Amino acid sequence: MKLNKNKRTLIDCDVHVYPVNADAIKVYLDQPWKHRFGIRKNMLYKNPLKPTDKNPPSGGEAGTDPVFLREQLINQNGIAHAILFPRANVTANHDPDYSTAVASAYNNWLADTWLNKNNDDGVFKGSITISHQDPYAAAKEIDRWAGHPHFVQVLADSGARAPFGQRQYYPIYEACARNGLPLAIHPGSDGMGINQLVSQGYPSHYLEYYTGFSFAMQSHLVSLLTEGVFERFPDFRVVITEGGVTWLPALMWRLDMEYKGLRSEIPSVKRIPSEYLREHVRFTSQPLERPRNDQDLLEVLDMMDAEHLLMFSSDYPDSNFESVEAAFPKMSESMEKRIFFENARDFYKL
Amino acid sequence: MKLNKNKRTLIDCDVHVYPVNADAIKVYLDQPWKHRFGIRKNMLYKNPLKPTDKNPPSGGEAGTDPVFLREQLINQNGIAHAILFPRANVTANHDPDYSTAVASAYNNWLADTWLNKNNDDGVFKGSITISHQDPYAAAKEIDRWAGHPHFVQVLADSGARAPFGQRQYYPIYEACARNGLPLAIHPGSDGMGINQLVSQGYPSHYLEYYTGFSFAMQSHLVSLLTEGVFERFPDFRVVITEGGVTWLPALMWRLDMEYKGLRSEIPSVKRIPSEYLREHVRFTSQPLERPRNDQDLLEVLDMMDAEHLLMFSSDYPDSNFESVEAAFPKMSESMEKRIFFENARDFYKL
Repeated sequence: MKLNKNKRTLIDCDVHVYPVNADAIKVYLDQPWKHRFGIRKNMLYKNPLKPTDKNPPSGGEAGTDPVFLREQLINQNGIAHAILFPRANVTANHDPDYSTAVASAYNNWLADTWLNKNNDDGVFKGSITISHQDPYAAAKEIDRWAGHPHFVQVLADSGARAPFGQRQYYPIYEACARNGLPLAIHPGSDGMGINQLVSQGYPSHYLEYYTGFSFAMQSHLVSLLTEGVFERFPDFRVVITEGGVTWLPALMWRLDMEYKGLRSEIPSVKRIPSEYLREHVRFTSQPLERPRNDQDLLEVLDMMDAEHLLMFSSDYPDSNFESVEAAFPKMSESMEKRIFFENARDFYKL
Repeated sequence: MKLNKNKRTLIDCDVHVYPVNADAIKVYLDQPWKHRFGIRKNMLYKNPLKPTDKNPPSGGEAGTDPVFLREQLINQNGIAHAILFPRANVTANHDPDYSTAVASAYNNWLADTWLNKNNDDGVFKGSITISHQDPYAAAKEIDRWAGHPHFVQVLADSGARAPFGQRQYYPIYEACARNGLPLAIHPGSDGMGINQLVSQGYPSHYLEYYTGFSFAMQSHLVSLLTEGVFERFPDFRVVITEGGVTWLPALMWRLDMEYKGLRSEIPSVKRIPSEYLREHVRFTSQPLERPRNDQDLLEVLDMMDAEHLLMFSSDYPDSNFESVEAAFPKMSESMEKRIFFENARDFYKL
């Protein structure tokens, strides 16, 4: 895409922001949680590459400084809205009360630090962090923020002990639906603490772990589509983030095919899975698989109806994302408009 | 494909055969294993559809009668060779000695029942069942059968406690390589007994479980390609069976892309993963994802180089496989020849 920095023609659907230190969260925690809280580096699977070009001159780590992020990401790329994803990693913890308290503190922090004084123009849009260990508390937390002008979605780590179509999660989906907020599923906490890992046991390298997020997302997606969730909650919507993109046609071909043979097993599902997908699910683009031949990618994007289902994301500052210009191969102008702007505008009602 | 029953122009790379009852295996077991052995129906995830049209008139279940299988599958479809996959499910068990003994008994049974008196013309080709809980014993079992004229591969369930690239499995790969036998990975025992399930916890339905075998296969494949297995064992080859097909381009685009960024993590891997794949890995076709538009499938088959990597399979008698004629959309004659015959002939040196 040809970038025009002066025209704000982009919505970035996956931008990561972090508290500058543990105290920034602790001020929102009561005892006994305050005492217990600390920001731990993941004990497992860390990206071995550690680029420093996104660290703010203020001294914190990448993604901690709203002023610098505005300068480096928003202004340099003409971004109209950035959907912010804090990374609280709350779902790895065994204690649902602790996890709920931390999720709640992250929401207060996000509202006060990113969605308030630093957001006069409304560029930043926030995600309501929830702990899905306690779906009832999560639903309450969603209700607590639902009236806020800048929270536009609910955020759940993919790390879980059960696939997301299963019934224990329904209070969350009900709260999302009644407040018109989609649920974003983002990689995180997979295989850590109390969570499953969608893998044949623990792999040896970060490369495998990171690639494996695509299996994690597919596993949740299959569950959501085959448990009748979208029949039960017709206003519930989902966005799959940072899990890869081009696996979608193969998965949906398979799922629609199996549905034809095995639909007697899932009577609550009334239509082929890909119909629910089209109405209820969107995907963010980073990391986008890039074959040697651009034409192959364009064909697969066409097969998955990326024109309607895909939303641009940079995954700033975590990814190897290089530039907006190089994010996609050359596409038609109308396709670019949809992926870089219109799909997200419509989905998030911006 | 247009079928000519009188010309044997097909190799079927995934045909399931079963002992007619537990005694058929017990005769090959010593105590204390004989006492312990029984053929259990899977306690988890059973295909709810139970077609009876493949049950032999002799009274056993489908896949138990060599004479009837010849009639219904081999002769009706002009099959030159059928690669037989017994389903011992040995990898779900906690005891490596028991599992090894059962694997061994299945091999004796297969040799005596299917590869001997019923195989004068050599149509049936067998798989050496191994228990990967004891890789040293598995290697011995491979050596035991390696001289047999009709065993053409080694068979491992995908169900495992660790991804297949990891080092504990290397005695198996060494034995495969020195005997020129590929390793077939087939769905089975996933999430059962002691094994992992490549899913966010246990899904509710067989449909999800069955679809999820594609994630199981991708997980093993990523591990094999990123652990340097094919550098260490240049003669080792793998065939991925019954795990779906069309996910391959997306996976390899992603893996090659991540390799470019993260290769410093895996110094034993010298080339991009897709190069090893092309040289060392093949896939069987059933269940082949079928999109509404045949052209989409043909394009993806082209992207994955199905002309060289894909081998026809029926999954008889387990699958919903309908007919050889309907197995693929219309392809070029040379592509048909490769997928239905030549790829398997070359891979198995038939």
